Amino acid sequence: MKGDEFARIAAIAATAGARARGLGDDCALVPGGVVTVDACVEGVHFPAHDALPAARFRALLEDVGHRATVAAASDVLAMGAAPRWILAAWTLPPWLDDDGVVAVARGQRDALDALDATLVGGNLSSGPVLSITTTVFGQAERPVGRDGARAGDLVVAAGALGEASLGFTALGRGLVHRCVDVWCRPPVLVRESAALAAGAHALIDVSDGLAQDVGHVAAASGLAVELDETALLARVADDARALAHALGADLSRAVLAGGEDYALVGAWPPGRPLPPSVDVIGRFATGEGVRVRSVDGRLVDAPAGHRHGGG
Amino acid sequence: MKGDEFARIAAIAATAGARARGLGDDCALVPGGVVTVDACVEGVHFPAHDALPAARFRALLEDVGHRATVAAASDVLAMGAAPRWILAAWTLPPWLDDDGVVAVARGQRDALDALDATLVGGNLSSGPVLSITTTVFGQAERPVGRDGARAGDLVVAAGALGEASLGFTALGRGLVHRCVDVWCRPPVLVRESAALAAGAHALIDVSDGLAQDVGHVAAASGLAVELDETALLARVADDARALAHALGADLSRAVLAGGEDYALVGAWPPGRPLPPSVDVIGRFATGEGVRVRSVDGRLVDAPAGHRHGGG
Repeated sequence: MKGDEFARIAAIAATAGARARGLGDDCALVPGGVVTVDACVEGVHFPAHDALPAARFRALLEDVGHRATVAAASDVLAMGAAPRWILAAWTLPPWLDDDGVVAVARGQRDALDALDATLVGGNLSSGPVLSITTTVFGQAERPVGRDGARAGDLVVAAGALGEASLGFTALGRGLVHRCVDVWCRPPVLVRESAALAAGAHALIDVSDGLAQDVGHVAAASGLAVELDETALLARVADDARALAHALGADLSRAVLAGGEDYALVGAWPPGRPLPPSVDVIGRFATGEGVRVRSVDGRLVDAPAGHRHGGG
Repeated sequence: MKGDEFARIAAIAATAGARARGLGDDCALVPGGVVTVDACVEGVHFPAHDALPAARFRALLEDVGHRATVAAASDVLAMGAAPRWILAAWTLPPWLDDDGVVAVARGQRDALDALDATLVGGNLSSGPVLSITTTVFGQAERPVGRDGARAGDLVVAAGALGEASLGFTALGRGLVHRCVDVWCRPPVLVRESAALAAGAHALIDVSDGLAQDVGHVAAASGLAVELDETALLARVADDARALAHALGADLSRAVLAGGEDYALVGAWPPGRPLPPSVDVIGRFATGEGVRVRSVDGRLVDAPAGHRHGGG
């Protein structure tokens, strides 16, 4: 999310006054659980239909349905809640034919399968571009917020970091690579969410870039955070490392600021055993700000977050 | 909603298979209540920003925030539920400045006040046009569906019918009229919804035109419905009648097929006392289809529903 969008959320909240609460969090708390909404807009969150070869775009349509659903559900997983009921509001542009609608619906269904969730409603409208706005209602006995981290907690991560942004760059250059598939079909971290929720003091998903999103946890908890570049680079898959090299991309920057990973990052008490597939990538401390302990031992400011159109 | 949109909803539902339920209803049933989502898209549900004089469009922005919220909440009122928690996903086009954002937010706040609801979340994204996609969560002990009408039940209505479509036509011609204000700021029928829910066998809101929407109740209940043109015309306000005349519009057609009224229409047991501000406008009977008993006593097929881009 861009800085002026935070300002606009603040303006909307100020205008609503007592009629608003909790704007800017991943999810709203409602009786029985949490609820969130997320938009996936052509030309903003995925390439415009005329920006890719027609056959490539057609193949992408299934992924759009999948991505839209998983990206929205990620905010629910980031509260340690289980996505249950989903509503999808589509705007359908003139160029989208019935086969295209079914392609998007297939991707959506695959995501529902992976999430073990049910589509209970939605809305169809015409519009100038394809967009899918997904509302997800999740159940949680004890939703985990972003403000509970304590000084000394470990920063822990589940899911790949940096692969999605490398994949998106590769997609734009017409390349075929596993990281393109990762961008197209983000991971569904249902088990990891439940495991982290059982022990984490705070939890968030990485949509705008690791440094920015973990910075939200630090700020909400009144703490500083230090990320460990060595640990972060050590968990990058070999083929992603090779892709970064081939693209001439800065691997550290992709990991720290790439965005759209939909990984989960938590604040974990140092004495507690780690769940499977969860890695330590830093530590919370007193103070404020996000810093990175670089491979050469220097402590540097984290790079700015991912800049896309959405939030 | 257009016919091909019903077909597309069916295709999406068929694709989702066991992962979908209840698509096409006003709301989905979830624990504790009902939930719905509705989109309000520039150029589809309200005029494009360059289709009106700049000052007129700026004034309209507040109404857009109001309309988007009330139109979505209408589906909750149509289940006899009380709108409680609202999420709003905005796409913000490049031409919309900060003052415009606040104008939309003001209209949204006015609607929240009228509905006694709270904005608990949302999403901001960039996009080519302004759109507001609103999710409304409503509480209801006994949600009222559209399938419970019985032969002999009265068709009853709360709220104006036809005024919104006459107002929309007048807006396009640059006229100032109370019906323009009705289109801009649809009525909020919270009390009427509660009163109807306490006694109606079935309930629906009129978004696509009276004949089409009451036809959904008849079809879902396995019945025919006969609307009484004389009763319908008798409840039209004098200034709306005069506006229809000035516009050269067919008043009966506006009442029966105009759409975007957000009136409430129910199936009411004939022996039960009517709530205040609720009128009898027809009757359910065995059979199928929607017919109109015209002023001259003939029984004719109802006109086709309102055709806009949304559903």
